[in-house]
Amino acid sequence: MSERPVNLVEKLGLFSEHWTPKIVAGFNGNDIMVVKVKGEFNWHSHPDTDDFFMVLSGRLRIQMRDGDVVLGPGELYVVPKGIEHCPLAEEETHLLLIEPAGVPNTGDPTTAVIKNRI
Amino acid sequence: MSERPVNLVEKLGLFSEHWTPKIVAGFNGNDIMVVKVKGEFNWHSHPDTDDFFMVLSGRLRIQMRDGDVVLGPGELYVVPKGIEHCPLAEEETHLLLIEPAGVPNTGDPTTAVIKNRI
Repeated sequence: MSERPVNLVEKLGLFSEHWTPKIVAGFNGNDIMVVKVKGEFNWHSHPDTDDFFMVLSGRLRIQMRDGDVVLGPGELYVVPKGIEHCPLAEEETHLLLIEPAGVPNTGDPTTAVIKNRI
Repeated sequence: MSERPVNLVEKLGLFSEHWTPKIVAGFNGNDIMVVKVKGEFNWHSHPDTDDFFMVLSGRLRIQMRDGDVVLGPGELYVVPKGIEHCPLAEEETHLLLIEPAGVPNTGDPTTAVIKNRI
């Protein structure tokens, strides 16, 4: 038996919609996701969980009330739990996200997207 | 205030030794680490935790008893808890690793390296 790894570029080629994280693998109760983003998301926070962002391609500005963080390819940032943030991408940007399974992407279960596995 | 993201290439430029993971950030009780590897590690398993590997540059073969997985840049693989594995890199390879804080890299606290933060 020889298993295949998860190829992130290949997974990103399977969909085109923005702001819809897709689960590609999991570990220790966490979802590993890829997402395509463009434009501005919404201001939100996650009360109990830190939020991991890594840029695979493009450029992401994570707006926060105390100042922004700008990430390019190969850069990551963790938004601490409880900190309000609003991601913004001027160009289409591809991200790796990791969150405990079940955490709503908007911080609010009533507005969160369903995260499908691809 | 404007904070800086974690730049993985920059962090990898701060050390040269192999098989010595360096902590660059943390989230939800996990350590996010970079490591340079070359050659063969040892056969080991982690009884309670899945093991996340992502290749940043180079090429990693994760040897397992039922078959190997080979990862190139932009590819990731999760070794399930309890599965024996032995990483092998023919050329110098740079990895992103994520594990719950405190997990010994060798699967054995008596042989594990200390993971310093850089």
